Amino acid sequence: MDVLEKNSRFAKANRSLFSARKILALNVISSPGSGKTSLLVKTIEAFQGKFPQAVIEGDQQSEIDAQRIRQTGVEAVQIQTGKGCHLDAHTIGHALEEIPLPSEGIVWIENVGNLICPALFDLGETKRVLLLSVAEGDDKPLKYPEAFYGADLLVLTKIDLLPYVDFSVEKCMDGLRRIRPGMEVVALSAKTGEGIEKWFHWVNQQLATIRG
Amino acid sequence: MDVLEKNSRFAKANRSLFSARKILALNVISSPGSGKTSLLVKTIEAFQGKFPQAVIEGDQQSEIDAQRIRQTGVEAVQIQTGKGCHLDAHTIGHALEEIPLPSEGIVWIENVGNLICPALFDLGETKRVLLLSVAEGDDKPLKYPEAFYGADLLVLTKIDLLPYVDFSVEKCMDGLRRIRPGMEVVALSAKTGEGIEKWFHWVNQQLATIRG
Repeated sequence: MDVLEKNSRFAKANRSLFSARKILALNVISSPGSGKTSLLVKTIEAFQGKFPQAVIEGDQQSEIDAQRIRQTGVEAVQIQTGKGCHLDAHTIGHALEEIPLPSEGIVWIENVGNLICPALFDLGETKRVLLLSVAEGDDKPLKYPEAFYGADLLVLTKIDLLPYVDFSVEKCMDGLRRIRPGMEVVALSAKTGEGIEKWFHWVNQQLATIRG
Repeated sequence: MDVLEKNSRFAKANRSLFSARKILALNVISSPGSGKTSLLVKTIEAFQGKFPQAVIEGDQQSEIDAQRIRQTGVEAVQIQTGKGCHLDAHTIGHALEEIPLPSEGIVWIENVGNLICPALFDLGETKRVLLLSVAEGDDKPLKYPEAFYGADLLVLTKIDLLPYVDFSVEKCMDGLRRIRPGMEVVALSAKTGEGIEKWFHWVNQQLATIRG
């Protein structure tokens, strides 16, 4: 609990900074391979030139994700957590010193691929976005409830795979309602672009709220 | 480190028990939704009646997986880890008191879906099996190396999805060679059955070694 309390203090500082600069900070959480980076790349490209953006990438190892992001022309800091299973607010605070802060824009935080530990650590984000790929199965809300409790939006990804996997959207939504009634959900495929406008719309709405 | 040392002592006790009873204990690790339970159900059915089997299921919440296993007729204990992100050797020791020990057979341990934390905790298993679904992406060995370091076999799952996802088996194997040269790999689809005989063969080989 001491770790979580300490984390909360750093999260508070990050949140104050985001608020002062009118930054929308989105903490993006999911299992490994749910398509966080692919969605970020598409979204950053779509919003490029409209407002400033910066990215903080979390992974156990490698610079693969930060390199993919940098190809869009947006700044990205890669945090390598080593044996660590999540990002924490203190590390985010330091990463924010390394990037030009995108005032009145977005800081994207791509958390380490993990459906459990990142759910426990507030990073000071404005909103938390949870991704779930349809390839992962429709029972995930009931099996990993913590991640769903703490998120503001569920993005159902890779819906282009729906014809090829045993995933019932209805069953998943039913599980979600039991865990987190009324949660907002967007279903999309970053690959085909299906549904992605709804996601852009949600992000734009959050940004408009922040900028006032 | 104290946690890991304490875990090691319990792991040693579990390992002694498995060894004394000539039990093959397989610790199955992967991200959420890589298909651990589906593969276990198929495998348990294939081996049913040939030798005794028992299952220990790890999840944050729910009895979903244990219920799926019990439909095969094999005993399953469900461990709910709550906020916990992995199984540990102490909990496994207690679970082993709840099931009839399958002497000269297999104890399947399905770990919590998580590609990071379970890699750090020895459960006293005979072998560790890592599953990676092709829907998760070919960059996973480089991004989550710890899980690959500690495993004895990589099972590439859901290969029926290969035509529909951007997954290069070659690129994945190249990353794997950099992390863990010479690691054994089996590629299969639990859904179509493609490649599954190679997996059964591997399990049979391990069992033959244990039984002597």
